[in-house]
Amino acid sequence: MNVFVIGIGLIGGSFALDIKANYKNTTVSGIDADDEHLEKALELNIIDKKADFNELKNADIVIVSIPVDAQLTVIPKVLDIISDAALLIDVGSTKEAICSLLENHPKRRNFLATHPIAGTEFSGPTAAHVALFKGKTNIICEVEKTAFKLQEKALEIFQKIGMRIRYMNPTAHDKHIAYVSHLSHISSFMLGKTVIEKEKNERDIFDMAGSGFASTVRLAKSSPAMWAPIFKQNKANVIETLEEYISNLERFKNLMKQDDFSEIYNEMENTNHIKQILNGIK
Amino acid sequence: MNVFVIGIGLIGGSFALDIKANYKNTTVSGIDADDEHLEKALELNIIDKKADFNELKNADIVIVSIPVDAQLTVIPKVLDIISDAALLIDVGSTKEAICSLLENHPKRRNFLATHPIAGTEFSGPTAAHVALFKGKTNIICEVEKTAFKLQEKALEIFQKIGMRIRYMNPTAHDKHIAYVSHLSHISSFMLGKTVIEKEKNERDIFDMAGSGFASTVRLAKSSPAMWAPIFKQNKANVIETLEEYISNLERFKNLMKQDDFSEIYNEMENTNHIKQILNGIK
Repeated sequence: MNVFVIGIGLIGGSFALDIKANYKNTTVSGIDADDEHLEKALELNIIDKKADFNELKNADIVIVSIPVDAQLTVIPKVLDIISDAALLIDVGSTKEAICSLLENHPKRRNFLATHPIAGTEFSGPTAAHVALFKGKTNIICEVEKTAFKLQEKALEIFQKIGMRIRYMNPTAHDKHIAYVSHLSHISSFMLGKTVIEKEKNERDIFDMAGSGFASTVRLAKSSPAMWAPIFKQNKANVIETLEEYISNLERFKNLMKQDDFSEIYNEMENTNHIKQILNGIK
Repeated sequence: MNVFVIGIGLIGGSFALDIKANYKNTTVSGIDADDEHLEKALELNIIDKKADFNELKNADIVIVSIPVDAQLTVIPKVLDIISDAALLIDVGSTKEAICSLLENHPKRRNFLATHPIAGTEFSGPTAAHVALFKGKTNIICEVEKTAFKLQEKALEIFQKIGMRIRYMNPTAHDKHIAYVSHLSHISSFMLGKTVIEKEKNERDIFDMAGSGFASTVRLAKSSPAMWAPIFKQNKANVIETLEEYISNLERFKNLMKQDDFSEIYNEMENTNHIKQILNGIK
């Protein structure tokens, strides 16, 4: 099987490793805008060889894992090159823009829109590892628009690497992911910014930070090159989540100003319910 | 050595376990407003026996680890009971209120104000464990107001259980801890609230949440009984951090509304610097 991975970072690289581990006689070729990523991926045996776009005509499967703005130019170009039997899987964190762009593409049936919920704050080929996807959710959008045989091929891969599948339309995906992923990134980045600004002249103060702070600002380590395009593509939904978040913070602040600490107690107690919700998340 | 722990939760219980592991011939007696906590602590061998306040006159060391509002009534009462040679250590997350309350207490020299940066989102005796404090920071306030021999005794314990010590005045402590701890808790609670409110009719949506969301809302599992009094005692500092945090979120939202995604990129890139800062935090 000829597999091409375009964008050898955490997600693309981990797919490469898992596919090699599960399929004999598979060659994984890598394409990346950054040649250092390709060299590192070769050195780490994530890919078997480097490739050019014109070699994509020999692909059985292409996985595109690049920033969501670059997807919009790269994916149509790749669809034009690949054979009628090939499958192109995208793994971007927004689904409406790409699905809408490809709606009338002549190779729409060769495309499968997915979002594996497996990102971390790390990026690049050194972040890739075997079994990243085990037990994780993969959201598939507009599955009915993909050729049946190619759906089957994709589902076999996802099953072998241990993912559970959820089907959703792109609009619902982008709306809900704004709450459970995109907003967390902004809350974390802005928390990091607030503390860094305040403490920039007193570096020792970070001695006072414990594991709670580290956990809450973890996502502020994430790659701006990946996240700025996500916020751009999901602008309306993300602004809505931010407005609700800010309004909840304002309410909390006003309760404090009014010395209404019993209501603050209630707010926290009601939110403790997140314990049950988080139990299922790895 | 006769050690009394008042409040057998994560912090008090873990001190009990570490002291028993490091000091032979030590009896740890427990006092707790919740008798179930005491029974559980006995069952888990965290304490050797239950005790009453009037037994505190036999104490060599008393550790008080209860909510910071309860501290203000309990600690003066305990100081009145203990002997002139006894040491009382408090471990609360605010330091100004208790230090100021005890400023002219006749037993002020028997008191040591500390804040071990070792909290987690878990609470109660079942959360206590050996070596919780290993490698963690303990902030000591107004050390010069504690009798020299009692300082020595406390430092020996902290050293044996592996803590590193930072000295700070109570005002600076409360100001900085608002940024690196108290604000994180509010950002996390309100993130949890925002998502729960939005998704309450679509429970399956949490299937879309990954490890990033789990990390960012982890602190929203924390105990309201512990945290409402902290916010109350550190009201002015916490409101200041909240205002700066909200203002940074507003700025991010406005950049999105203006489609200034290159400035959003810069904001994230500048905050990526948190990586270096977090490297030292366990």
